[in-house]
Amino acid sequence: MTDRLEIIKSTKRKAKPDAGNLVFGKQFSDHMLMMDYLEGEGWINPRIVPYEPISLDPAAMVFHYGQSVFEGLKAYRTEDERILLFRPEKNLQRLNRSSDRLSIPAIDEEKVLGYLKEFLKLEKDWIPTAEGTSLYIRPFIFATEPNLSVAPSKAYTFMVILSPVGSYYAEGIHPVGIYVENSYTRAVRGGTGTAKTAGNYSAAYKAQERATEMGQSQVLWLDGVEKKYIEEVGSMNVFFKINGEVVTPALNGSILEGITRMSILELLKSWGMNVSERRISMEEIYQAYEAGQLEEAFGTGTAAVISPVGELNWDGRKMVINDRQTGPLSKKLYDTLTGIQTGRLDDPFNWTTEIK
Amino acid sequence: MTDRLEIIKSTKRKAKPDAGNLVFGKQFSDHMLMMDYLEGEGWINPRIVPYEPISLDPAAMVFHYGQSVFEGLKAYRTEDERILLFRPEKNLQRLNRSSDRLSIPAIDEEKVLGYLKEFLKLEKDWIPTAEGTSLYIRPFIFATEPNLSVAPSKAYTFMVILSPVGSYYAEGIHPVGIYVENSYTRAVRGGTGTAKTAGNYSAAYKAQERATEMGQSQVLWLDGVEKKYIEEVGSMNVFFKINGEVVTPALNGSILEGITRMSILELLKSWGMNVSERRISMEEIYQAYEAGQLEEAFGTGTAAVISPVGELNWDGRKMVINDRQTGPLSKKLYDTLTGIQTGRLDDPFNWTTEIK
Repeated sequence: MTDRLEIIKSTKRKAKPDAGNLVFGKQFSDHMLMMDYLEGEGWINPRIVPYEPISLDPAAMVFHYGQSVFEGLKAYRTEDERILLFRPEKNLQRLNRSSDRLSIPAIDEEKVLGYLKEFLKLEKDWIPTAEGTSLYIRPFIFATEPNLSVAPSKAYTFMVILSPVGSYYAEGIHPVGIYVENSYTRAVRGGTGTAKTAGNYSAAYKAQERATEMGQSQVLWLDGVEKKYIEEVGSMNVFFKINGEVVTPALNGSILEGITRMSILELLKSWGMNVSERRISMEEIYQAYEAGQLEEAFGTGTAAVISPVGELNWDGRKMVINDRQTGPLSKKLYDTLTGIQTGRLDDPFNWTTEIK
Repeated sequence: MTDRLEIIKSTKRKAKPDAGNLVFGKQFSDHMLMMDYLEGEGWINPRIVPYEPISLDPAAMVFHYGQSVFEGLKAYRTEDERILLFRPEKNLQRLNRSSDRLSIPAIDEEKVLGYLKEFLKLEKDWIPTAEGTSLYIRPFIFATEPNLSVAPSKAYTFMVILSPVGSYYAEGIHPVGIYVENSYTRAVRGGTGTAKTAGNYSAAYKAQERATEMGQSQVLWLDGVEKKYIEEVGSMNVFFKINGEVVTPALNGSILEGITRMSILELLKSWGMNVSERRISMEEIYQAYEAGQLEEAFGTGTAAVISPVGELNWDGRKMVINDRQTGPLSKKLYDTLTGIQTGRLDDPFNWTTEIK
């Protein structure tokens, strides 16, 4: 097995976008990291090559049967020019859990983290420096065997591409309106909701269209069985602060186990706050709202870190939360997490990994 | 808009496989049919070009968010050398319904059927002639815009590839064993179960692995809500004959609307049989079995047409059906449908389309 990282440098260098012109996920760095899987050989030929189109047989299984998983994480440049990753081992562990659900062979997490570090060293000038910016890292795996049989592929490609991204909140944190979706379903127990697989995302577009029509920014997903219990917001996990207690839906087999979610739970506990992961119904949220106890609500994810919810719309009932302002807990969590991620604050949890 | 079909013929011709060496979905004809979608321009540049790898940006949305739908149908060569398609307009209608669920723009069904006929005329020598063989036709659409934003793509590719396939039953119809899956879920109401989208298929691999471990050929899927009601078998619809009545699960928003299923319902009604589409629980099937009234069971789909079920395994309970023999109704349906498809029998329903 060939597992020495080969590097073929690009002879051309693209112009790097200005900090003011960073568009999420549309601009990519000069290179890409790749690795192949072949049955009987395992993951082979790790390589960094110039960023360029890839060539696939039209019968490649990814087009037909959707064996495809991905991850998203960020590299940050600190004020003193260090490069930090935030809990990258968690992303690679989750990638393998997603792969397992889709019958895709596991990668060696430690080796791949090593390749990723080498890749980021090569592309370090692509990590933007302005406040709030970062380099978004997209690892993904897809099936390449040309075969229309409905069965796991015998060949895969692993890739990482890099996209410099601007501040999610160029004009400050802005609480968003949420539409509670009563008919479309994101996922159900026994399905693929816990996996970061391609099919879960496009399956959500119709509900997002409806949220947009309703003048709302995001969808809040309810459970697929009873359509009563809260699962996620858009492609983020969701938290509520009710009468001093912070609650988030428990990992029930259909929601994604967010790494920001996990970190926020650890932070809140370290602050001695009253936190619980449990089943939460929309009815409970509405009762709390009516009683004046729904203090804050926010989504959590890699892109926005914290996305405060200003308004919830459920079956014709509108709940305005904290007067559509970012609540003090949301703000404190945002400042603390982004502070740790960017090296402005100490990292007592050892969450960051420096690339040297 | 350019919608005149362009044809670029291949200068090389592949050797056609012998009738005895046809492997499903691994051998493809000399050309492929393609068409592009660009926002603001619609579907443009329909063309037949040599079969070859396609080139995609690594950020193409199909890899990341799974906007991808497909169809499957067959072309048959009759004994008198005519070429028949079976209800192709139904496949193109369903392709558009699948696309709608995935927020993919609709194709013009009539135009595309015209292009498909031209394509099949060009590739007619790829339609095998031996008993039970056919040319499998795989139309598919996938998102091509290079963009990591979670939103519908602004660019797509439509393709058709062709694969000569052998008889599904080279050694005669063979009833299979079925494992009733109690924990993995194929689909749920509000999800994508009614769409022929890539993500539905790889999501089923884990359950298929378990069926194989249990020594069974296929999975029988239960509903995602109560895990009581029958949905599909593998990637086929399913029928039961109970005490003279033929029943199949009603289209409930999570099962695929099979074109073979639809045709069988029409056939059975034309024969004056007692048929119903309704909710069917595993408990009902078990009770019928215990009472000696479970006469036949079979899956239906494009690949196998009819796949008799010889054994059902549910929660430790084994039901052997019709002594593991193909039942008379299964046999009659298979002979009639394949007879119409291949032109051996009259087509009183006008299901076949001849390509002239």
